[in-house]
Amino acid sequence: MAKIAVLGYGVVGSGTVEVIEKNKEGLLKKAGQEIEIKYILDLRDFPDSPYKDKFVKDFNVILNDPEISVVVEVIGGIKPSYDFVKSSLLAGKSVVTSNKELVAKKGAELLKIAHEKGVNFFFEASVGGGIPIIRPLHQCLSANRIDEIAGILNGTTNFILTKMIRDNMAFDDALKTAQELGYAERNPSADVDGIDACRKICILASLSFGKHVYPDNIHTEGITKITPEDVAYCENFGGSIKLIGWASRQDDGKVAVMVCPAFIHEDSQLAGVNDVFNAILVRGDSTGDVVFYGKGAGKLPTASAVVADVVIAVKMNSSSKSLYWEDSDQDFIEDTDKIVLENYVRVNGISKDEAEALFGKVSYLTRKDAPEGELAFITPAISEKDCNEAVAKLGDKLLGRIRVLDY
Amino acid sequence: MAKIAVLGYGVVGSGTVEVIEKNKEGLLKKAGQEIEIKYILDLRDFPDSPYKDKFVKDFNVILNDPEISVVVEVIGGIKPSYDFVKSSLLAGKSVVTSNKELVAKKGAELLKIAHEKGVNFFFEASVGGGIPIIRPLHQCLSANRIDEIAGILNGTTNFILTKMIRDNMAFDDALKTAQELGYAERNPSADVDGIDACRKICILASLSFGKHVYPDNIHTEGITKITPEDVAYCENFGGSIKLIGWASRQDDGKVAVMVCPAFIHEDSQLAGVNDVFNAILVRGDSTGDVVFYGKGAGKLPTASAVVADVVIAVKMNSSSKSLYWEDSDQDFIEDTDKIVLENYVRVNGISKDEAEALFGKVSYLTRKDAPEGELAFITPAISEKDCNEAVAKLGDKLLGRIRVLDY
Repeated sequence: MAKIAVLGYGVVGSGTVEVIEKNKEGLLKKAGQEIEIKYILDLRDFPDSPYKDKFVKDFNVILNDPEISVVVEVIGGIKPSYDFVKSSLLAGKSVVTSNKELVAKKGAELLKIAHEKGVNFFFEASVGGGIPIIRPLHQCLSANRIDEIAGILNGTTNFILTKMIRDNMAFDDALKTAQELGYAERNPSADVDGIDACRKICILASLSFGKHVYPDNIHTEGITKITPEDVAYCENFGGSIKLIGWASRQDDGKVAVMVCPAFIHEDSQLAGVNDVFNAILVRGDSTGDVVFYGKGAGKLPTASAVVADVVIAVKMNSSSKSLYWEDSDQDFIEDTDKIVLENYVRVNGISKDEAEALFGKVSYLTRKDAPEGELAFITPAISEKDCNEAVAKLGDKLLGRIRVLDY
Repeated sequence: MAKIAVLGYGVVGSGTVEVIEKNKEGLLKKAGQEIEIKYILDLRDFPDSPYKDKFVKDFNVILNDPEISVVVEVIGGIKPSYDFVKSSLLAGKSVVTSNKELVAKKGAELLKIAHEKGVNFFFEASVGGGIPIIRPLHQCLSANRIDEIAGILNGTTNFILTKMIRDNMAFDDALKTAQELGYAERNPSADVDGIDACRKICILASLSFGKHVYPDNIHTEGITKITPEDVAYCENFGGSIKLIGWASRQDDGKVAVMVCPAFIHEDSQLAGVNDVFNAILVRGDSTGDVVFYGKGAGKLPTASAVVADVVIAVKMNSSSKSLYWEDSDQDFIEDTDKIVLENYVRVNGISKDEAEALFGKVSYLTRKDAPEGELAFITPAISEKDCNEAVAKLGDKLLGRIRVLDY
């Protein structure tokens, strides 16, 4: 029998307990032994819970219990999760977490400790909720050199964009709908500003390229400036606007990483991903494009990813060699200025000659009821530096700028 | 150092050798030790190959060499693969294969031997080529009860159907194009009659439901009877025709399994899967729908899946507990007659009253330039038995019948 502790009895924590209790028999078969939840750590009281005897408030009870071989951290955030996870690993316990902030900020350090101690630090649920992506990436695609990875990594923003595209809603109205449905927080910044997507692409890029990509170094843009006019031009372009976290091996050997809304061509497997669904495209040198699609959040999808990690942690008696990345001083991250992309630009009150003097040979887009003086176009592939300089010259004549990505 | 043998130097075999040689350094990191190809078994001579010293013609050289810990079987078919694989496992060697026929027909027996011997029998490449599906299914989704699985499992037929849909080609012309491009064999039966897709859904269903599903028991229909008229009606229906291998847990506890062309609604994640691409949808009780998409065939995609399995086989020192299914007398397979589905039916020379007397309340479809007397409709959900009986009564007035699937 394997005894485990669950830290945090919120949405994912209670889901994890539920999934383990519900599937006891199947998990026994798959893990080769029974999995028993011995402790649940939470500062609150749950006097009516069927698990009330398992609750503890002092983490040291768990840390000092040699029977506990796997600790599940589903509190979220850095404090106190980081301390709990680090001391668990140092005590020779494997850790399973859904905490993307922790993995994005502290992954290299925690993986190193886990490997030194011969235990595992697993985090399948930190990206894509119930979509299997972390394990497929390091195990099933291990014979590939990963060249690019791009994903719709945040369901809230994808829901808002879908509302804007399908129902012609403005951003504020779509956000309000998302909040009413419980898809967006009262303070939606972590979602709509791209912070959540940034943590996730950092985790995926760290695993794909073998060195820690820290969120602080990544150019991150959200979806708050996108307008129904941009949506209309994107339709004319023949695609959809999606918030994409992406990482791409560059010709100079560095890795470009960015989170930004983007025009995605309708032929892309990412273009048809709507509502709260997520999808992650992995471009390998042998497999070509592989896409993983599903619900990127939610109590049971996320909990089932946590529990699957628990099953593997229970079975393994050494550290996973393929789930690893090194710490890094970020010198392998491409300077954002040097990233070369096409851009959609919408302007007011400049001529085609002026536009082409700034951006080169552009392709124009149209929309119904465009007002006199409005111009929208796709630039040639130009560096971020050149595009930013050209855009700055437009001043308040600039109405919008969205990158075009080729996934 | 791990020493392995590759049986068969055809497309996948030479790809496997290429991927291992190309990625030596990365594989060393991931496997924790060097992987050396000691033998390649092939009856042919390859005097100009850089690996010419590795070739052997006698399988016993490999079988009797205690240094060989992993055998890669990429010959295909049952003879002599079955004997080679079985004796390798019995000799305590792990086996990695891409051979879907072998796994679909002999999986339960070979898994049992592997478990008894404490070694592994891996076959990620047998379904979906380079798409990770076998390992995600038994590891990452292990906390789910899998309720349904449905896939576009054969790239050749998907290419032909895409040509029929996009270019209004007739089946014969589309097949000819596929043959010219090398996507279809001169004798295309295994693909166009659904045999290949049947082997693959049998493997997926066996793994998902824990008991061996044998191909012989599965109703299997190919795409040879599909016409441009059916394609036109499906467009009016709002979907695409795809060849789907599917397995579904039924209310009576049995599992329905079938391979058939089907109308798939355009909102489905399977509808947008075109050309030679494959996609597999897994419906779990916790995760909901998860979809895996990518190239289902090809030398390097398939070889990279083989090599990823080799890496894991090299690292593991016991049998995978989750990759397993029992043998079965097939009593858990639902009687095809009892499967209940909607159907698209196209007829000539019968009235709406006659149609509704046979099928109940139907919904009519239209197409451009439909000749006088042609009628096409979607039936209510009815049992296969009832539908087959109604269709039989139509005699030569029946022009087409295609099932409607809800994925």
